[in-house]
Formats: sequence, structure tokens, C-alpha cells
Amino acid sequence: MNYFSSHFTLGILGGGQLGKMMLYETRKWDIRTSVLDPSAEAPCRIAADYFEQGDLMDFNTVYNFGKKVDLLTFEIESVNVDALEKLESEGTKVYPSAATLRNIQDKGVQKQFYKEQKIPTSPFKNFEDKYQLNEAIVRKELHFPFVWKSCTGGYDGKGVSIIKDAEDIIPLPEGACIAEKLIPFKNELAVIVARNPSGEVKTYPVVEMEFHPEANQVEYVICPARIAESVANKAREVAKKVSEAFEHVGLLAVEMFQTEDDEILVNEVAPRPHNSGHYSIEASYTNQFEQHIRAILNLPLGNTDSKVGGIMVNLVGAENHNGPVLYKNIDEILKMEGVTPHIYGKKETRPFRKMGHVTIVNKDITEARKIAEAVKKTIEVISRN
Amino acid sequence: MNYFSSHFTLGILGGGQLGKMMLYETRKWDIRTSVLDPSAEAPCRIAADYFEQGDLMDFNTVYNFGKKVDLLTFEIESVNVDALEKLESEGTKVYPSAATLRNIQDKGVQKQFYKEQKIPTSPFKNFEDKYQLNEAIVRKELHFPFVWKSCTGGYDGKGVSIIKDAEDIIPLPEGACIAEKLIPFKNELAVIVARNPSGEVKTYPVVEMEFHPEANQVEYVICPARIAESVANKAREVAKKVSEAFEHVGLLAVEMFQTEDDEILVNEVAPRPHNSGHYSIEASYTNQFEQHIRAILNLPLGNTDSKVGGIMVNLVGAENHNGPVLYKNIDEILKMEGVTPHIYGKKETRPFRKMGHVTIVNKDITEARKIAEAVKKTIEVISRN
Repeated sequence: MNYFSSHFTLGILGGGQLGKMMLYETRKWDIRTSVLDPSAEAPCRIAADYFEQGDLMDFNTVYNFGKKVDLLTFEIESVNVDALEKLESEGTKVYPSAATLRNIQDKGVQKQFYKEQKIPTSPFKNFEDKYQLNEAIVRKELHFPFVWKSCTGGYDGKGVSIIKDAEDIIPLPEGACIAEKLIPFKNELAVIVARNPSGEVKTYPVVEMEFHPEANQVEYVICPARIAESVANKAREVAKKVSEAFEHVGLLAVEMFQTEDDEILVNEVAPRPHNSGHYSIEASYTNQFEQHIRAILNLPLGNTDSKVGGIMVNLVGAENHNGPVLYKNIDEILKMEGVTPHIYGKKETRPFRKMGHVTIVNKDITEARKIAEAVKKTIEVISRN
Repeated sequence: MNYFSSHFTLGILGGGQLGKMMLYETRKWDIRTSVLDPSAEAPCRIAADYFEQGDLMDFNTVYNFGKKVDLLTFEIESVNVDALEKLESEGTKVYPSAATLRNIQDKGVQKQFYKEQKIPTSPFKNFEDKYQLNEAIVRKELHFPFVWKSCTGGYDGKGVSIIKDAEDIIPLPEGACIAEKLIPFKNELAVIVARNPSGEVKTYPVVEMEFHPEANQVEYVICPARIAESVANKAREVAKKVSEAFEHVGLLAVEMFQTEDDEILVNEVAPRPHNSGHYSIEASYTNQFEQHIRAILNLPLGNTDSKVGGIMVNLVGAENHNGPVLYKNIDEILKMEGVTPHIYGKKETRPFRKMGHVTIVNKDITEARKIAEAVKKTIEVISRN
């Protein structure tokens, strides 16, 4: 199959920042693309060969879009899986597959899958609704504290709560959920796995999420993670096993906990390029977006090693700022060594909205960490108003 | 000035592969762009915010285009400089400036400039036409062998000939030209200099052009050049001096000769991102296209150091192949370590047409050189017909 400067068309469901960064790679290789997104101002509108505005959850929209392309992928999980299944049954290649996506979209199903596949994960219970959850507490089948997760629709920390007592139950929404055992952990880690239809698999180095000491928020994604090699190897092995269990094609970001006794537990996965892999654009021999394209097109996978250490800082909208965005002091961070800002192209900022990210690379990860802190203290995402 | 996700528009004259790679950076920073190119199928058509088809040498076309943007740059020297001058006089920023471009566009003027500025260059004579050239030979003011260069229109080795005897004069075109002393050299080198309007200047490491031992054609661009550090330092100093002499803003690629006795002579310059800097996309902390954007927007310049060694191989159309392009064995080179192909997006191949390039990066430049040779032996740019 010839993808380069050819008539082959890759369809991408979702036109946000992940799609936008994927388009750098399709442009680099002159692969024709068509993107579907509900917003007329989607970051992917520019740089795609074709752009279509439409609802990703609507069966007909996704189905009709899929019929016009040669291979379909997605940059967001909230898409109509029935349409993907029908497309697959009619011969359109969809990577990752509809079956993989079904196993991942619902967190209850995802956890059950780990259990069946003997993939280490924290103990959990499934509940069809809040009523069932309450009953389990009353019957003392479920004990405080625990981690509550909505089965569907969770994203960027939404749909997850630590439940310490009965009071914390009240604000939870109705609907299917899981309750996970709260396990103290040393580190939150992630490994990106690439797998192509021929079964070639490669894992990226382990990254570490460093949390703010007070606010419970990821501040830095650090590659390589500052952990023992034996733990890193174990994490990469587990991630590989997860990818193979799903028979996943494309990129799979596997988020994991390193427990107090150095066990690795799978938290959850994302079947696409991931925030935890953004560092790879500047730091890796093959960045995650190129790797995703290689994987879904069944091309040989690229080297996942890093050229240099990399740290990623998210650029999120400042509190109390709504309106046309201004990246205050961006020229100041451009003076710093090895600093690359990525601006996603969202015109309006809102508190905590992901507006971009900054990568800091350096041969010395300790030095990179210092510069990352200076970046975080300097740049501000505010409103021009 | 706010360039990021703002109403500021950067105009680019020329929509070829250099412009295309520049657009990766404007997309990364969400800088609005408008591109003018004569071809409806220009590689820049996609990924620019606005694209206009028009003649770059036509005064009105360039002038009217320039009036609609906030700052104007170019990715090709063959543009209407009168229009740029008028735009500048009316307050539009043009970087590099019209004056710089005038000094560079005509090779006779360029050489004269080096002489006046005491920049080392090979001895030369200016001739208004072929008649004058012939006369100088007859009067024995000019001796064989010498290097003939057309004052205008030279590109990619066109407009340059080594003249060994009277016979070689016959096929030369009419028109203004220069005759340069033929100086034996050890190496052909290049240094890219970045300079912003505030006068901040940075040079990239020296790259070396490795020629095919038989065909007189550059095969590999190698960074860092395999030369003594003292020679490299001298080359960077000379390049910096050239940039400052021109009061150049943006990128300036300075091509140089390393003579048998390790002198550095300036051959010619290009006031834009350059083929000799393509390696920087994968190898440098700041790639040349981002650096060009930083420079013309008067942002702080980025680190020009390399993360790893880099080698660039041009992908040119194979002999006897005309028609829709096929990159034969591209999947084979994707298996090799640290290999990134760039496909410019020209639909039709022709013998020797520049269709793309391949970068090979490696911590060990000797290893990179071996892989580069394997790449060159493996991939072929042929026609599908």
C-alpha cells in the first residue's frame, strides 16, 4: 500500500489538539487526511486536506464520514462505536478497532477485562447505578475510603472522586460506576505502547507524573521517570501485556501506579496519543504522533528511545480569566534553554482549560526540572480583556 | 506584540517545501499565515490560514498581498523587490529586508559587497554580458580555468559552470555574469546564522557537504562537519560577520569553502531557511524554521546546539522517471534506526526534481553516516506509471 503523496485518505475522528499534532506528521509524509469534529473552529480545521463539521456520537455522521476514507482512526474516545463496527463489517479498516474501544470506553468493562486477563489492577466492584452503590455501603460490602469512578464520560480528572465518608456520596451523579480500593502509591507512571497490525510492539520509556505538593494536580510529566530500573522494566512489561491483551493497534497510553512495595497496578488506558507522550515531539527519536501513524498504517515502528531528557508542563487557563487568550511572558520562556511552547489554537481561555503545553528538554533531567519550574512560574494563560 | 492565537498575520512569499516546513512552526504556535505562490498545487496550500495563487515577480500581486499582512517574509529569493521596497516605505515590516535581498539576488552585487566589507571570498571579475567576458579572455585579463556564474536566476547548481577552455564558453547564456578564480578546496561547508531586529545573533554548528566521489553532486549534508574545531570556529565567525554586514534579519545560510590551507572563503548566501539546515528538524534544540520565525518576529533566539548528530540526504527524482510519484522502499528505510523521511508533496516526479529529504540522526555520527548510505541505496523516487 502506498500512503505517501497518493490517493489514500486517512480519516480522523476528532479535531482537537491531539489531531492537530497528528497532522504535523501527515503533512511531513504528505498523507491525505480528512477530519470530523463538531466545532467549526477545531484546531484541525487547518492542515487537514478535508474538514467536516459533525457530531462524533451520531451514528450516521460517523458512518457516512467513514465510508469516504480508506482507514479510520480517532483522537478522542467519545465516538459512535456502533458506526465503527458497521464500517469494519463492511471492510473499512478502523484502528484502534471498535472492539478495543468498547473494552476501554466503559471503565467497568475495562476493569473487568484486566481481571480476566490477569493484568494487575486495584481491587474494584462494579455498580449499575448510585442506588446499588449506596446499598453496598449499607450492607457493609463496601468500606470507606474508596475511589469512585463514573463508567463513562470521565476525562481530565472529571468522573473520579476519592470518597472518604457518606457525605462525599451526595454530590455523585447517578449512573453506572465502579468503586476501587484506595491504594497508597509512591508514583503515578505512564507508558505508551505502539503496536501495529503485524503484531510488532514497542514501548516508550516510563514517564512520571509529578504532583503539586499541596494541590492534588499533575504539575510535570518527566521522562525518564526517576525510578529504579527494575521498576521501569516491570512497568514497560505490564504495559506491553495490556496492549497485547487488547490486541490493540495504534498507540495505547497505559497509566499506572507504583505502590509502596513497588508493585505496578494498571489504573486506566487511553487508546490514542496522550498528554503523557507530548514530551516525545522534542525528546524522542520517534514522536508519539508519527508512531501512531506508523502503527495504524502497518509501517515498521520507530525507535522509542529519547535523544535527551524531556519534561512537559501543561498550559491551562488561569483562574478568573475568561475570553480571548493571551500567553503572558511567552517571550520570557523562549529565552530559556531547550524550551518549546505548543499553542493549541483555542481562541478563548477559561479557568483550567488546556490551552497548550511546554516541553523542556535537556541532557540533564535535573537541569530540565529546574527550567520547567521557571517556565511554570513565568508564563500565564490569561484573557486579553 | 502578541503573535500567538492572535489577529496578527504573517505573510509568506512562496509556498514550496521551505514554506511548508515553516508552517509546521506557525501551526505549533498558532500564528496566522497567508501564503502567495504561483502554483495551485503548492505544498503550502494546506496548513496556511490563507492561500493566494499569484506571480511572485509581479509588482502588483506582491504589493497587494503585502498590504493585507502584518509582516512579510519569503522562502524564495525570486520575488519582486520593488514591491517589497514600496511596502517597507509604507510601514509594512519585511524581513529579510528589501535592501538585503537586493544585495543577494544579483551574484555580481553580492561578490562586490563581500569585497567592500572585507569578507573573505575568492577573487572575481564582473561582466555585463557574454561579449565582455569574451573580450577579457582575448585580452588575457581572464585565464582558464575559472568558475562562471550567472548574476541572476541561478539555483540548485544551475547558472554555475567550470570553464576549462574556449569550448566551454560556447553554451553559456548571454547576460551579466561573474568569473571567479577556481580555488581547490578540501571541503564545502555551510553555517546558518540567525539574527533578529534587536541584533541578537546565533550561529548553528558547521555542516559539511560530502560529494559523490565521481559525480560532482552533494550526497550527504553532515552535522557536525568532520573538521578541526579551529576551522569550525573560524567558519562560524565568518558567517556571523556576513550576517552582521548585511544587517540581515531572519536566517542566512552561508555557503563556504575550506581551502587547502584551511582558509574560509564565502561562496554564496541564501537569506532564508536552507537545505543545509534540514537536519535541524530532528537534530537541533531549535530547528531552523522555528528559528526563522523567532528571528523575524524579534523573539529571543533559540539554542542552536544539536541534541544528536544529523545527516541529510536529498530525495530527488530518479532518471528516466516522469509522472505520479512513488517512494519505492520507503517502508524499508523506516525500519532503520533514527530515520525520518520528509515528503514535500509534489505529485509528479521528474529526473533530479527535489521531492523530499531524509534525516538520519544518531549519537554517533559515524554510525549515522553508515545508515545514511544504506538509506541512499534503498529508497528510490520513481514514477507509478
